[in-house]
Amino acid sequence: MLHRAEIIAVGSELLTPHRVDTNSLAITQRLNDIGIDVRAKAIVGDDRGDLRALFVQALGRADLIVLTGGLGPTEDDLTREVVAEVLALPLVEDESITARIRRRFERRGLRMPEINRRQAMVPRGAAVLDNPNGTAPGLVIRREDKTVVLLPGPPREMKPMLDVVLREHLEPRTAGMKVIRRVVRVSGRTESHVEEAAQPVYSRWTAGQLPVSTTILASPGQIELHLSVRSDDSREADSRLDDAVSELVQALAPDVFSVDGRTMEEVVGGLLRDRHLHVALAESCTGGLATSRLTDVAGSSDYVERAVVCYSNRSKVDLLGVLPESIEAYGAVSDKVAIEMARGVRARAAVDVGVAITGIAGPGGGREGKPVGTVFVAAVWKGEPWARRFQFPGSREMIKFQASQAALDMIRRLVSGES
Amino acid sequence: MLHRAEIIAVGSELLTPHRVDTNSLAITQRLNDIGIDVRAKAIVGDDRGDLRALFVQALGRADLIVLTGGLGPTEDDLTREVVAEVLALPLVEDESITARIRRRFERRGLRMPEINRRQAMVPRGAAVLDNPNGTAPGLVIRREDKTVVLLPGPPREMKPMLDVVLREHLEPRTAGMKVIRRVVRVSGRTESHVEEAAQPVYSRWTAGQLPVSTTILASPGQIELHLSVRSDDSREADSRLDDAVSELVQALAPDVFSVDGRTMEEVVGGLLRDRHLHVALAESCTGGLATSRLTDVAGSSDYVERAVVCYSNRSKVDLLGVLPESIEAYGAVSDKVAIEMARGVRARAAVDVGVAITGIAGPGGGREGKPVGTVFVAAVWKGEPWARRFQFPGSREMIKFQASQAALDMIRRLVSGES
Repeated sequence: MLHRAEIIAVGSELLTPHRVDTNSLAITQRLNDIGIDVRAKAIVGDDRGDLRALFVQALGRADLIVLTGGLGPTEDDLTREVVAEVLALPLVEDESITARIRRRFERRGLRMPEINRRQAMVPRGAAVLDNPNGTAPGLVIRREDKTVVLLPGPPREMKPMLDVVLREHLEPRTAGMKVIRRVVRVSGRTESHVEEAAQPVYSRWTAGQLPVSTTILASPGQIELHLSVRSDDSREADSRLDDAVSELVQALAPDVFSVDGRTMEEVVGGLLRDRHLHVALAESCTGGLATSRLTDVAGSSDYVERAVVCYSNRSKVDLLGVLPESIEAYGAVSDKVAIEMARGVRARAAVDVGVAITGIAGPGGGREGKPVGTVFVAAVWKGEPWARRFQFPGSREMIKFQASQAALDMIRRLVSGES
Repeated sequence: MLHRAEIIAVGSELLTPHRVDTNSLAITQRLNDIGIDVRAKAIVGDDRGDLRALFVQALGRADLIVLTGGLGPTEDDLTREVVAEVLALPLVEDESITARIRRRFERRGLRMPEINRRQAMVPRGAAVLDNPNGTAPGLVIRREDKTVVLLPGPPREMKPMLDVVLREHLEPRTAGMKVIRRVVRVSGRTESHVEEAAQPVYSRWTAGQLPVSTTILASPGQIELHLSVRSDDSREADSRLDDAVSELVQALAPDVFSVDGRTMEEVVGGLLRDRHLHVALAESCTGGLATSRLTDVAGSSDYVERAVVCYSNRSKVDLLGVLPESIEAYGAVSDKVAIEMARGVRARAAVDVGVAITGIAGPGGGREGKPVGTVFVAAVWKGEPWARRFQFPGSREMIKFQASQAALDMIRRLVSGES
């Protein structure tokens, strides 16, 4: 039975500052789907000693080791040799592979360079995976209770082989287990406050027949709870996760904004569309970011009527009808001005919801009582003004993002009637 | 002497199909800069046994081990504990860290949750790295000839600490070899066209005493040429790179917009500021993205007067004075309407430069003669209108980005007099 996998990506280019290994994402997804956990990933250069050490260690820990890259024809390409050596299998030329590579070159009117014979060397007993998109075949080797899979590095060569490996070599040897996932997204609480509220809930799920695993992921303006269940019965797993998600929603409502993978802008867009509402925004410190995010959603022209980015005080007066006296008396960064902005943009655009953001994104501009990160978000909805003051941490870009998130979240709470 | 590093990224989210470790890229870059090679990278979940095994093995191979992630306040966060255990160092609470975390919460009007005390636990003898952007401090531990660095996972917390680690803890212990880099950024040509023009130039540099390595990196709207020289004499390396950069600029001008690491929005901001100019934008398909990017730059309120996001035709007429007949005759996505938008926003804002963007970001809305990705960018500068039609490939978000880049680039070319 296969339970536990490690992935090793081979190639010195993957150790430069410019390349990340993305093959492992596709491999992880496919392995998870059939209930195999990826416990670790490693990236190593074209170095015999380093590759050997990592492979030996992975072999000690995992049932399944997937190696990508290092199957090319040059002397740098060491994966075949190192794997054969560690597993003490002789490398034998497979003439049918040589013939196939030769034909591939001939079809392009080229002679096969002799070095490509290296790609036909196969550890004895290995199953060969045809490569329709390149010269390097893949290999599957079983040795006692361990399975080793060698795949080429280029994604377009690797991916079609992955299908064959899963179907023919791995899936028949799993317990029929699958991993089903859910993501719960929360806005308006810090990571620790989400944890505090969620911990007593999800500590109950780790026991019992179908334990739910949870991971908490924090990013600015948003906390995600990732839940997963491993089961051979996907209906049972789905229903277990449905229960878990609704318990969490109960503990955290109304701060949960998504349980189906949708982003804040998609959720807000969906609410506006379903209710046939239109929105207009007045953005100062966010500089258009909130509107840009709303319009990242296809079809958003159905509910975004307009926005104004009123960076100068003059534009707040001209475009929104903010009273110069209000700016004078309370400052452009104040709940009064935020509300006047929201009223102004709503009235002029003749829409249902007007939203406004004004604040200090920094790094300059902070002052006594209004430090950098001070942001007022206001909305006018059904004639009523709403305003809230926030104090966001972080860089200018993070403050902008959190302010845009707070504005979208205010629309969500008002329109869904949860505020 | 430090020569050989390994990087371990900790966090179960990094073993899901949705997340890659990008921290290691920045860390690799900075270590390479001071002549330290990264020999392997590993990614491991929030699992004590797995993390312990990988850390022990890395410790056996490398002089320097950099761990990122797993420094949060929750029970999942194990990096501190595992490292202390393997190195046989007791964990002791550092009261000054607790106090700092408490103040951080208090500044936001919040009570520190008790679990955050975990972040104040320090392996005895470790140097503590202050975290200005979060609660988890970083740690540097020296044990015999090995150095272990613990950094938080969120990039904005990790990066500023990396500077301190390099300067105070690592650089003094290297052999003095440095890698000096330059990045040349180009807009308005495809990767192959940049390659075609640059190849004859940089093929000359690979020979000689101080060879210049080059890498070309393409992303939507922008091509980067990365040049580097490895030397123990940074003045000599600098002068070699200066020559290389000016040869490239000559071959590619006026499409080179940055040779000093600045982004397009920083370059455009600098030009506007130096010339005491003000800009106003009218955005349709980009939904505020161009203005949001311009206002990512600190101090941009000095030159961004306003913007309007005129998603509806009505808002184009109301806010910009676009003629309904022009929309009728040419369509909202046309050079005529783009120019009227630019004229309108410039006149109403009474600024020097007016810029407008109108196009089809997709996935819907394409039509005969104007498929998805059709974008018109216009500007009015010194009374003269300029307009250009683009056809951008990719997803909605990629089209938005490329359109915003084209608009900023148009400002750059006009204002710097290079158009």
